[in-house]
Amino acid sequence: MAKSARRRAARKTYTVAVVGATGAVGTEMIRVLEERKFPVGKIVLLASARSAGKSLRFHGKPVTVQQLRPESFEGVDVALFSAGASRSLEFAPEAVKRGAVVVDNSSAYRMDPAVPLVVPEVNPHAIAQHRGIIANPNCSTIVMLVALKPLHDAARIRRIVVATYQSVSGAGAKAMYQLWDESRKVLGRWKSTAKGWSAAGQPWKLAKGVGPLPKQIAFNVIPQVDVFLDNRYTKEEMKMVHETRKILEEPAMAVTATCVRVPVFLAHSEAVWIETERPLLVADARRLLKYAPGVKLVDEEAQGGYPIPVDAGGQDAVFVGRIRSDDSTKNGLALWVSGDNLRKGAATNAVQIAELLVKGGR
Amino acid sequence: MAKSARRRAARKTYTVAVVGATGAVGTEMIRVLEERKFPVGKIVLLASARSAGKSLRFHGKPVTVQQLRPESFEGVDVALFSAGASRSLEFAPEAVKRGAVVVDNSSAYRMDPAVPLVVPEVNPHAIAQHRGIIANPNCSTIVMLVALKPLHDAARIRRIVVATYQSVSGAGAKAMYQLWDESRKVLGRWKSTAKGWSAAGQPWKLAKGVGPLPKQIAFNVIPQVDVFLDNRYTKEEMKMVHETRKILEEPAMAVTATCVRVPVFLAHSEAVWIETERPLLVADARRLLKYAPGVKLVDEEAQGGYPIPVDAGGQDAVFVGRIRSDDSTKNGLALWVSGDNLRKGAATNAVQIAELLVKGGR
Repeated sequence: MAKSARRRAARKTYTVAVVGATGAVGTEMIRVLEERKFPVGKIVLLASARSAGKSLRFHGKPVTVQQLRPESFEGVDVALFSAGASRSLEFAPEAVKRGAVVVDNSSAYRMDPAVPLVVPEVNPHAIAQHRGIIANPNCSTIVMLVALKPLHDAARIRRIVVATYQSVSGAGAKAMYQLWDESRKVLGRWKSTAKGWSAAGQPWKLAKGVGPLPKQIAFNVIPQVDVFLDNRYTKEEMKMVHETRKILEEPAMAVTATCVRVPVFLAHSEAVWIETERPLLVADARRLLKYAPGVKLVDEEAQGGYPIPVDAGGQDAVFVGRIRSDDSTKNGLALWVSGDNLRKGAATNAVQIAELLVKGGR
Repeated sequence: MAKSARRRAARKTYTVAVVGATGAVGTEMIRVLEERKFPVGKIVLLASARSAGKSLRFHGKPVTVQQLRPESFEGVDVALFSAGASRSLEFAPEAVKRGAVVVDNSSAYRMDPAVPLVVPEVNPHAIAQHRGIIANPNCSTIVMLVALKPLHDAARIRRIVVATYQSVSGAGAKAMYQLWDESRKVLGRWKSTAKGWSAAGQPWKLAKGVGPLPKQIAFNVIPQVDVFLDNRYTKEEMKMVHETRKILEEPAMAVTATCVRVPVFLAHSEAVWIETERPLLVADARRLLKYAPGVKLVDEEAQGGYPIPVDAGGQDAVFVGRIRSDDSTKNGLALWVSGDNLRKGAATNAVQIAELLVKGGR
């Protein structure tokens, strides 16, 4: 590219819409657009009628949230959606009709064969196939695949077993409040001292949960994320199966998941076991992950060096550690990951997709 | 047995010592002895010098805690130990020398080939081999095996993959206080409302943990239970491997575990995958578990029917649910269990062993 063309390209800016701007992920999208200096010429913040009129800030300037309507997308170049599947189904086609490219964080289009499902570190090439909509995968899937991609490339993964430890922010701002509120209720009625502890009376047990999650989450874990399907798995578990196969372009890959909500505000963690076609030494896996894009290797065990959600929260990298040989099967490897579900699991991944779009001229 | 002999047997009582009587498990042992009406003639409560002199209650009557010494075991029939491995190594032989049978909840003797390692629902026959000491398995192992035993008998398990969600009470009363104290610290500096939630500032993150656990546990998960070994697994993870093999008498069984501490006060939960030699239908697994000793089947998914730690806490049964086919491998089955780590995982299992001892004339 000639110098003048480069300067022109650098100057080019885009009108970006954030749909669901006041939600847990939408808020994070705005912040990530700022942090990554996405070339935003104009920002359009959209939400339901309930939130319209609110004022948010973008690069320090107030921006009024507008009510989401089909006409909202006039002149929009890139629309980042995170307002639930039904809103995406209704409004993403309206945005596309008006010339925008949609990056959709909902599950609405993920398994649509005509829609690319993209993790930029894993399958950036898939973007080329887009016809106006690109889907952002489920947060648990993204966090896992950023860690597994370099291992898959090196040794070809044949089977994945994963147990998740998912934060409440994955269920939205109201679920975060549920954890806060329930924790407060428990502690408020219960004075403790370091001595004389016993399990008598179980003061940590509430009569019932007080929020959107299906059970009490404070001082509890819930082996249900999303609704149950006919095969007795939850939708979240099957998302991890189907999305993994689509993103890795391995339609027959064996994947099994148990998804569990834990009383953590931010960042999902996962215990992962893989079985590979070719042997993969722990030392090689560590080296691959050390240099892998989007990965931060935290694997110094005895020194307390392993990923935990309070460290991974607020970070774009997926933290990977506890890498060890799984001798219970042929070519087995076990690992542990933590990643910020609102950032890399949602907002950051969506903005990275937008960056690729801009790079490729949309 | 003649009527008079039966009456005499019914009247027979035992002198029972509880070693570590003021600890999280010891306290529970005393309560379980009461609840199960163990034929205690005299109870001897033993602890370190620090706790000696304290008064506890047994069947409503005050009992003074005595300092643990070799002579404490004079006249004791059954000694329940839960005061750490080093105390067991020092004092269990002293108790045996004085004629007591020891049920040891520490890890000191578990892998000793001369010591039976017993879960009464799984391998009661092993007790017959004892030479004075019987070991109580690790809490995570007990909870898992109560659920897996009927499936193993029906279809022979060849491989187990398990991810744990372990409560802080497994690390003792001080770790319970750590969770309480850290949670209080976080909530105390952080006023929230249902609206306006965001992840900014991460107010749930403390500078460091403030207790015996290796990291902050409030609003966090820690993929480390016990110390790290040379093979990069933790001691807790390898306990699950080795103890499972010993208890099931399957020295070559493939087992792999990732053990994780979660901010739950009581009851351990586990995501378990098994691969069996013979196929096992979900319906058959459910039926087997419905009638299995020590198991409570809670498997009505869509109705919220699945095990959670706040329900399993305080109960003796291991709660089992989320039973589903794992089609990612041949003859695969996935399930989810929650069990009270202080009761069935420790105190109840120990008292059940004592009951078998008494039944067999020690």
